Amino acid sequence: MALTLFAYFRSSASWRVRMALALKGLPYDYRGVHLVRNVQHDVALGGEAQQVPSLILGDGTRLTQSLAILDYLEEVHPHPPLLPTDPVQRAFVRSLAQDIACDVHPLQNLRVLRHLVGPLKLDEDAKTAWARHWIERGLAVVDARLRASPHFGGSFCQGDEPGYADCVLLPQVFNARRFGADLSALSAVQAVTLACEAHPLIAATHPSQCPDAE
Amino acid sequence: MALTLFAYFRSSASWRVRMALALKGLPYDYRGVHLVRNVQHDVALGGEAQQVPSLILGDGTRLTQSLAILDYLEEVHPHPPLLPTDPVQRAFVRSLAQDIACDVHPLQNLRVLRHLVGPLKLDEDAKTAWARHWIERGLAVVDARLRASPHFGGSFCQGDEPGYADCVLLPQVFNARRFGADLSALSAVQAVTLACEAHPLIAATHPSQCPDAE
Repeated sequence: MALTLFAYFRSSASWRVRMALALKGLPYDYRGVHLVRNVQHDVALGGEAQQVPSLILGDGTRLTQSLAILDYLEEVHPHPPLLPTDPVQRAFVRSLAQDIACDVHPLQNLRVLRHLVGPLKLDEDAKTAWARHWIERGLAVVDARLRASPHFGGSFCQGDEPGYADCVLLPQVFNARRFGADLSALSAVQAVTLACEAHPLIAATHPSQCPDAE
Repeated sequence: MALTLFAYFRSSASWRVRMALALKGLPYDYRGVHLVRNVQHDVALGGEAQQVPSLILGDGTRLTQSLAILDYLEEVHPHPPLLPTDPVQRAFVRSLAQDIACDVHPLQNLRVLRHLVGPLKLDEDAKTAWARHWIERGLAVVDARLRASPHFGGSFCQGDEPGYADCVLLPQVFNARRFGADLSALSAVQAVTLACEAHPLIAATHPSQCPDAE
């Protein structure tokens, strides 16, 4: 099955999907969509609007929303797994991913930051402070939850192999660094970041390695 | 298994879980957490922080994040199903839910609106305009995707029975009305809303029916 990923190198939601595809060993064609030059991410969709990320299946079906794509990949290509088998543990891992995908990322993505400096007339410093505020709060929650988890052993979010939550956490840490957020007290988040960065399959998915990287 | 739901009657993420529990016929104890008087939603967690919604299982395990809870309920109590069986259709339904849970709801929830009028010093009109902006854009995306779906027949989001995406859409429409968003052109969203409001199990989960309703 030929997969095509519409993505943007700096989009952290796109990176989640790149990580999942890499961890499952699934090849795909990469199509860069330049979000800064185009506002396609915001266009009310049809199949044509290149919402990023979107994954095109061999029959032309377009899947959108990064976490829905991760669940799809897990269901259709279960090995290696990105989620544990126990329902309570699965819920924990998914909730960590949503702590970021619902409570952090939406507040600091491109369209929202543009709205802050456009219609709301915030200056660049206030925009950056806004992004840092939500990132630091949200990742502190993730850090506390990881440290309290019996399944966090100091490397990946759950167990000894990277999975679903790691695919969401690492890209958010990348954004945190871009905005100068202070993560120095977040020992668990730091440990996961180091483990991910040392993993060859994950390292190959870094934004700097994307065909459309600038 | 005795379930306890920590919720707030006006929290749309809490309503998602109330709908899922009702549709699956699962009884639970309801514990109201007053989000307007308490800022517990924002507290870096431990088990004690009453993040809303959270579902406490019979053994004391606390599940958080509404969509992770919906997936947990689907996995442990599969009948009646909230998701289709086909992986592509499941991905579509989950992506509709995330169009709201990731792209709309986080931008208009209580802590963000408080931040806009607090540190950012927006007035009430600007706050409401912000909420309406993201709600109208986001629900227009959902509407377009529903109308383009071969599985949308003019009642619920997917097929003839309410499910996962309906649990997310109806509460967002409730918020849309509170903020005076204009949904008049969104025929599919309107149809789903009517179908949900006419469904007895769903009607019983309306915020006005909650023990902590004001």
